[in-house]
Amino acid sequence: MKKIYMDYAATSPMDKRVFAAMKPYFSKKLGNASSLHSFGQEAKKAMDSSRDMIAKFLGAEAKEIIFTSGGTESNNFAFKGIAFASKKKHIVTTKIEHSCIMNLCKWLETQGFDVTYLPVDSHGLVDPENVRKAIRKDTALVSVMAANNEIGTIEPINEIGKICRERGVLFHTDAVQAFGSIKIDIKNVDLLTASAHKLYGPKGVGLLYVRSGVKLTPLIHGGGQEFGLRGSTENVPGIVGFAKAVEIAKKEMIKEARRLSAMRNKLIKNTLKIENSCLNGHPKKRLPNNAHFAFKFIEGEALIMMLDEKGVSASTGSACSSKSLEPSHVLLAIGLKHEEAHGSLRLTLGRHSKNSDVKYVSKILPSIVKDLRKMSPFKENYDFFPTKGFEEDH
Amino acid sequence: MKKIYMDYAATSPMDKRVFAAMKPYFSKKLGNASSLHSFGQEAKKAMDSSRDMIAKFLGAEAKEIIFTSGGTESNNFAFKGIAFASKKKHIVTTKIEHSCIMNLCKWLETQGFDVTYLPVDSHGLVDPENVRKAIRKDTALVSVMAANNEIGTIEPINEIGKICRERGVLFHTDAVQAFGSIKIDIKNVDLLTASAHKLYGPKGVGLLYVRSGVKLTPLIHGGGQEFGLRGSTENVPGIVGFAKAVEIAKKEMIKEARRLSAMRNKLIKNTLKIENSCLNGHPKKRLPNNAHFAFKFIEGEALIMMLDEKGVSASTGSACSSKSLEPSHVLLAIGLKHEEAHGSLRLTLGRHSKNSDVKYVSKILPSIVKDLRKMSPFKENYDFFPTKGFEEDH
Repeated sequence: MKKIYMDYAATSPMDKRVFAAMKPYFSKKLGNASSLHSFGQEAKKAMDSSRDMIAKFLGAEAKEIIFTSGGTESNNFAFKGIAFASKKKHIVTTKIEHSCIMNLCKWLETQGFDVTYLPVDSHGLVDPENVRKAIRKDTALVSVMAANNEIGTIEPINEIGKICRERGVLFHTDAVQAFGSIKIDIKNVDLLTASAHKLYGPKGVGLLYVRSGVKLTPLIHGGGQEFGLRGSTENVPGIVGFAKAVEIAKKEMIKEARRLSAMRNKLIKNTLKIENSCLNGHPKKRLPNNAHFAFKFIEGEALIMMLDEKGVSASTGSACSSKSLEPSHVLLAIGLKHEEAHGSLRLTLGRHSKNSDVKYVSKILPSIVKDLRKMSPFKENYDFFPTKGFEEDH
Repeated sequence: MKKIYMDYAATSPMDKRVFAAMKPYFSKKLGNASSLHSFGQEAKKAMDSSRDMIAKFLGAEAKEIIFTSGGTESNNFAFKGIAFASKKKHIVTTKIEHSCIMNLCKWLETQGFDVTYLPVDSHGLVDPENVRKAIRKDTALVSVMAANNEIGTIEPINEIGKICRERGVLFHTDAVQAFGSIKIDIKNVDLLTASAHKLYGPKGVGLLYVRSGVKLTPLIHGGGQEFGLRGSTENVPGIVGFAKAVEIAKKEMIKEARRLSAMRNKLIKNTLKIENSCLNGHPKKRLPNNAHFAFKFIEGEALIMMLDEKGVSASTGSACSSKSLEPSHVLLAIGLKHEEAHGSLRLTLGRHSKNSDVKYVSKILPSIVKDLRKMSPFKENYDFFPTKGFEEDH
C-alpha cells in the first residue's frame, strides 16, 4: 500500500544530507568535546562551527545558543531558569501553548508562582494589547509561541516582544514549529526554543537561544558545558546534524514555504467541500504546511485510524497529547465546543509531500468522513459550523 | 601517525552493531512514538522492546526505566525530583561524585536543602557505616556512585543500599561508569543513572531507573511521555541504539572485563616502574578498564598534550572538568595534595584496545614523564609518594 506521511508537525524524517553530516561523528570522530586531546578538539571544532551556523541563521551570537535535548527541555529551561533566577513571581503565557508549557506552569504554580494564561481569538491569535495589560510589576517572563503546533496560527511575536521590552520584562517564544519553516525575527526576543527533529534534523537535539546578559538558572546542572548553563557530554553527532538541517532550511526555506502553502491551500479548498467541516487556525497567518480541520459528528481518533488504514498518517492535533481523551486545550481556547474539538484533523505537509498526496487525501477523505458519520452517535445535535473565512486566494 | 584512544571513560565510539540498529529509525521508520498512526506505532513498538531489553538487563520492570538525554540529566532528575517531591530537606552524598552532582547539590543548598558530603578513604572507598551515621530523620535521599569516573573505585552500593532501606531512606546510585562494564545488583537501589555513550551507544541518551512506587517530580515537564515523568518527543533512534548497546554488553561484558583488566594490569605494572608515580583508586575494587596515576613534579595537562602528540588520547580525570584549572575534587578527597593532584593521568581502555596499545603507551610514557620533569618548576619539593598496594597479581 502507498504510504503518505502527513504528520510533519509531529516529527519529520531526517534529511539524507543531515545523516551524511552526522555519520562520521558516531564512531570515527568519537571525541568528547570537553576532552583536551585531538579527538576531543575535533569534536569541539565541529560543535563550534555548528553553533556558529545556527547562530547566524537566527541572527544571534554563537554564545547565545545553548544546545539541549529538544524543545521540551528548552521550554522547561527557559521558564524554570528565569523563575528560579528572578525574585519576581508572575509569568504571562497563553491558553494555546504546547502541553509541556501548560504542565510546567501548573508545577510552577505549586512552587509559589502566579501564571496568567492569555486568551486567543477564534483564529488562535494573541492580542498584543492583552499582553500589555497582563504585565505587572512582578512579572518575570512573558512567553508566547511563534506558531501554534496544532492549528498553525502564527503569533505577532515581534509586537508582543516590543511591548515586553518597553516594560522591561523578558520575552520567550516557543518556536519549535516555526523554526526553519518561516522567518523569525529575534529583535525583540530574549529567549527562543527550537528543536531539530521538526526540520529534518535528528531527534533528541534542540536549543535555547538566550540573549546575552539574560540570567537564568541551569535546569541540568553539570560539568560546565554550554557556557556553564547546561551540563552533559555534548551530543556532537546530534548537534552537527541540527546545524546541517538549519543550513538546508536557510537555503530552501522560502522556496519550500511557497511550494507547501500552494499544496496546503489545495488541500484546504478540497477538504472544506465536505459539509459540516471548518478550518481551524488563521486563514492567512498560518504555517505554510499546516491544515487543521474540525468535522462535525465524528471522532478525530476514528478518522486517524481510517486514514491510517488507507496509508495516510495524520493526527488530531499535538502528538504529545494524542493519547489523551481530553479535547485539545487549543481548540477549546479558540471557542470550539467539546464535541466539535473531538472531530479534529491535522494534516501537515513537508519536504517529501507531493501534489499527488494531496489529491489522494482529498479523494479518500469525503467518503471516510461520510462512513464515520453514518456510525456517529452525535448526529442528533445537528448544527452548522461557522465558516472561518478561508478563501481560495489565501 | 598511529592513533590510540585511551579515554573510553570520557566517551566511547559507537559500536557498528548499534549504528546498524539505529539507522532505519532516522528516516524510514520516522514516527513520533506518541502518534496514533502506523509510523507512530512502529516507533512505539521499537521503544517498548528497547525498554524491555534494558529493564531485563538491569533486573527491573519496563515501567521502571525512564529514558533521558544522558547521565547528567538523570542525576539532576533523581536529586531534584526527590528533593521537590519530598518534605524532607536533607541529602547525603559523597565527596567524589561526578561534578554534575556536586554542582546540583550546591544549587539545592541555595534552595533550602542541607547536603552532607561523605569522605572516602585513600582508595576512594565510601564506608557504609558513615552512611548509617549521616542519615537523619529528615534525610530524603542518599546517593553514592557505583564506580568513580576518575579513579575507577567500585563502591559498596549493595551494603549502602541495605542500610538506606533499613532506615527507610531512598538510595540513588550514579552508575554511568559501571553500567555495562560490571554487574550491578539493584536489589537495594531505588534510583539508578546510566548513559548510553559510555557503553558504545549513542551520545544524548540515558536513563533513570526509578523503582516502582518511588515518587518524584519531573525535571522536564512535558506531554505525558515516559509515564508522565519526562516530557519530550522520544529519541527513538537513540533509545534503539541504547538497547542494542546493552544487548551487546549483556553478551560480552564478563569476557570483556577479563580481557580489559588483564591489559589494564599490565599497563599499571609498567607505569608504576616510573619513579615517583603512584596508582590512584582501589588496587582491586576498580573498574576493569581504568588505570589512574599521579606523577610527581609534572602537570597532567602537559602530559596529555605530549601523549596526544604521540597519538595517544588520554585524560587527567573527568572530561567534564578537564578544562578547569582546579585540581580534581576526587583526588583531593583521597588525600592527594594540590600539587600531586595536578600530575594525574587517566588511561581507560575499551572494546578496540589491544595489547599493542598498552605496549606502545608503556614504551613512550617514561620518556615523556622524564622530559616534562626536566622542565618542572616543582622539583624542589621532592617527596616520595606512598605506594598504594597494587601488586602484580591484581
